[in-house]
Amino acid sequence: MTQAQQRIENVRVATTQGDGYGLLEDAVVVIDQGIISYVGAAVDAPAAATGCAVIDAGGKLLTPGLIDCHTHLVWAGTRADEFARRLHGVSYADIAASGGGIAATVRATRAASEDELVAVSTPRLQALMREGVTTVEIKSGYGLSLADERKQLQAARRLAAAHDVSVQTTLLAAHALPPEYKDAPDAYIDHIIDTILPTLAGEDLVDAVDAFCENVGFSPAQTERVFKAAQQLQLPVKLHAEQLSNQHGSALAARYQALSCDHLEHLDEEGVKAMAASGTVAVLLPGAFYFLRETKQPPLALLREHQVPIALATDANPGTSPILSLQLMLQMGATFFRMTPEECLRGVTVHAAKALGLYDRGQVVAGQRADLCLWDCTSAADLTYQFGTDRLIACWHHGKRR
Amino acid sequence: MTQAQQRIENVRVATTQGDGYGLLEDAVVVIDQGIISYVGAAVDAPAAATGCAVIDAGGKLLTPGLIDCHTHLVWAGTRADEFARRLHGVSYADIAASGGGIAATVRATRAASEDELVAVSTPRLQALMREGVTTVEIKSGYGLSLADERKQLQAARRLAAAHDVSVQTTLLAAHALPPEYKDAPDAYIDHIIDTILPTLAGEDLVDAVDAFCENVGFSPAQTERVFKAAQQLQLPVKLHAEQLSNQHGSALAARYQALSCDHLEHLDEEGVKAMAASGTVAVLLPGAFYFLRETKQPPLALLREHQVPIALATDANPGTSPILSLQLMLQMGATFFRMTPEECLRGVTVHAAKALGLYDRGQVVAGQRADLCLWDCTSAADLTYQFGTDRLIACWHHGKRR
Ligand SMILES: [Zn+2]
Ligand SMILES: [Zn+2]
Repeated sequence: MTQAQQRIENVRVATTQGDGYGLLEDAVVVIDQGIISYVGAAVDAPAAATGCAVIDAGGKLLTPGLIDCHTHLVWAGTRADEFARRLHGVSYADIAASGGGIAATVRATRAASEDELVAVSTPRLQALMREGVTTVEIKSGYGLSLADERKQLQAARRLAAAHDVSVQTTLLAAHALPPEYKDAPDAYIDHIIDTILPTLAGEDLVDAVDAFCENVGFSPAQTERVFKAAQQLQLPVKLHAEQLSNQHGSALAARYQALSCDHLEHLDEEGVKAMAASGTVAVLLPGAFYFLRETKQPPLALLREHQVPIALATDANPGTSPILSLQLMLQMGATFFRMTPEECLRGVTVHAAKALGLYDRGQVVAGQRADLCLWDCTSAADLTYQFGTDRLIACWHHGKRR
Repeated sequence: MTQAQQRIENVRVATTQGDGYGLLEDAVVVIDQGIISYVGAAVDAPAAATGCAVIDAGGKLLTPGLIDCHTHLVWAGTRADEFARRLHGVSYADIAASGGGIAATVRATRAASEDELVAVSTPRLQALMREGVTTVEIKSGYGLSLADERKQLQAARRLAAAHDVSVQTTLLAAHALPPEYKDAPDAYIDHIIDTILPTLAGEDLVDAVDAFCENVGFSPAQTERVFKAAQQLQLPVKLHAEQLSNQHGSALAARYQALSCDHLEHLDEEGVKAMAASGTVAVLLPGAFYFLRETKQPPLALLREHQVPIALATDANPGTSPILSLQLMLQMGATFFRMTPEECLRGVTVHAAKALGLYDRGQVVAGQRADLCLWDCTSAADLTYQFGTDRLIACWHHGKRR
C-alpha cells in the first residue's frame, strides 16, 4: 500500500502512554505508509514530504482507534420476541423449555448461509465503526459444529475484507452444548479438541481460543482440556470467567498465560493475583452487567491494587448484551463500575489491544499502526461523559482515512 | 406547502392505536399535504393521485415519528471534568462548593451568545433526529433571568427553524435559584411570575411551564404560585416531581390539569390516582435513573392499575443525563423498569405527544400529521430490544421526507 504522507497538525493527543491519557498539547502526528512515524511537538517535527496531506485538527482531540475486544456479533435470528415475552412475565425456564435462549440463536445461525450471516452482521459492524472502532474481535460459538463454527469465522473474515477495519477471530466452540451432544459435554469437548479446533486452526480461521467456564457452561476440567489443545497449536487463549459464580476459571486461564479473562463479577483476590502474575487483561463487560441487571460488581479495587490491565468491550450478542455501541460501554464503565475516564479510554485502546495480543496498536506512538480517531471535543473525559452525539470527525484505519 | 402525494405500500404498521402496537399487516399509508390521508388494507386504498410517489416498504415496520417529550438540550459548557473529578473521588459537596453542578451550567449558558447556544446544541438535536425523533421538547432553566431564559428559548425556536423537526418549548425558570436570589426563593418566584413568565409568554416563546418541585428545588407552595400564573396566561403546566423524595407535587400538578409529571420514582398511590383523574401523563426518565444510579423504581404497577399513560424521554441535560439517545431510553425503560416493548413504543409516540398536549401526532392514523419512521426490522419489539445499529430507513416530518 503506497499512500502519501499525512500530517495532523494543531492537535491534542491522548497517546495512552504512561498511566493516564498521556496527553500531548499542540502536537503534530505524521503518518507514513500506514504507520505513525512521528508524534510530538511541532518544533521538532520532520519537514513534510512532497505531496504530504496536511490536516489542521483545530486543537481537537486525537486518540488511538477504538478496539472492541469482545463481541459475538456474527449471529442470525432475533431474540426480540423472547425479550418481549420475558417482559410480559414469561419465565426464563419457560422460554428455554420452548426452545428459546441460546438454542434459538444456534438454530438460526446454523440455518443461515454464510452470505446471510455476513449480510445481517454488516450493520452491527458498521455501528461499531461509526463510533470509531478500528479493530474488533469476533467470536464463533453459535455454530457448535465444524461446518457451522467455520461458517461463523469465515463470515468474520469476510466482514473484515469488506470494511476498513481489522477483525480478530476467536473460536468459542466451547460456548454451549449443541443438541447432538445433549448430556455428553465431555464427548463434545473431545470433538472440539480432535476436530473443530485443529481443522479451523489449519484453515487460518482462529486467532485465539475461548471457552465459557461456568456452572451453566463448561467445567474447569473441560475448559483446561480446550486450553491444552490450544497450547499445542500455539494459539493464545481467553476465558469467559466468574460471570455468574466463582469457578476459579481466571486462575486456571492464567496458568495458560491467557490473553484475557472476561466478565469477572465474581473474581476473588486469588484470581486477581494469578492474572497479575500472568499479565492477563481483565475485560469488563458493562453491557451484560446492565442487561442482566447484575448487582455484583467486578473487583475494581483489587484489579487496581494488583495492576491488572482493565479493558472494556460490548460483548455484543443477542442474549445478554444486544448493544452495538462501544462508546456506551465507556459511559457504563464509569457509571456502573466507577472507572475513571482515563481507565475507560485505556480500556478500549491500549488494554483492549493487549487483550487481543496485539502490540502494534492502541497507542498514538511512533512505530504503531496509524489507527486513529479525531474527535469533536477537547476534553478526553468527554468521550466517557457524554453519549449519543456524533463526535467522530475523522477515523484512520492502518493510515487510510475512512 | 404543496407536496406530491406519497404512498407507502407493502408495509407493516405499528399504529399505536388501541392498547398495544396496533399492528396492521400488509398495509398502505397515504400522505397528502403533510397529513396521513389513508391507513389500511391495500384493497381498500384510494387510487393513487397523479404524480404520487410510491415507496415499497418491503414489509418493514412503520411507526409514528418518535417524540422526546422531556429535554434540556440547550446548554453551554461541559461538565465532563466535573464528572471525571467525581470518579476520582471528589465529593459532590466539594464540587458544588467549587462552583460546579448546575451553577456551572448556568454560568456557561449565561456567558454564551444565542448563536453559540444554537451551535453547541445543534449536534444534540441532530443526534435525536438521526434516531427518528420528529418532535422534541426543549426546556429553559439554565438562564434563570429574563434575558437568559429568553436566549435559551429563542435558541430552541431557531433550532426548530433550521431543521425538519418540531420543537415544543417549556419555560423552566423555576429550575434552580439564581445567584442573584441566593436565600430568597420567594423573591425569585415573584420575579418569574411578575416578569419572566408574562414577558416571554407575550413573545410567544412559551408552549408550557414547568418547575422543579423538590427539597433541593422549589417547595409545593412556590410551585403552586408558578402554576397559578401559568393558568392565568392559559399556558399548560408540567412538573419535575417526586424524583428524590415524595413532595406530593404530582397531586398538586394534577389539580392544575398538568400535561405531565416527570421522574416519579417516589410517587405514591394518592399521586397516581390524582394523575389518573386529571389525565396527566407519567413521564419516566430512565437516563437519569441510570446516571444517578437510583435504586428506587417508579411505581409501574400502580400506574398500570390506574391506567395513567406512561411516556419515556431522555431528560438530556449536562448534570444527570448526558445522553442524547431516545432509542436507548426504549431499552432502558424495558431493562430498568420492566416496561413491555409495547409500553416503550407508546411511551415515545402517542403518550409522549399527550405529555406535550399534542393530539395531532403520535399515531399512524388518517388525519394525523405525517410524522413517520420506517425501520429496517419487522418486529416492533426489536426497536426496544436491540440498541446501536442504525435501523432508520426513512423518516417523514410533517410529510417531508428528511
Ligand atoms: Zn461473551
Ligand atoms: Zn428534567
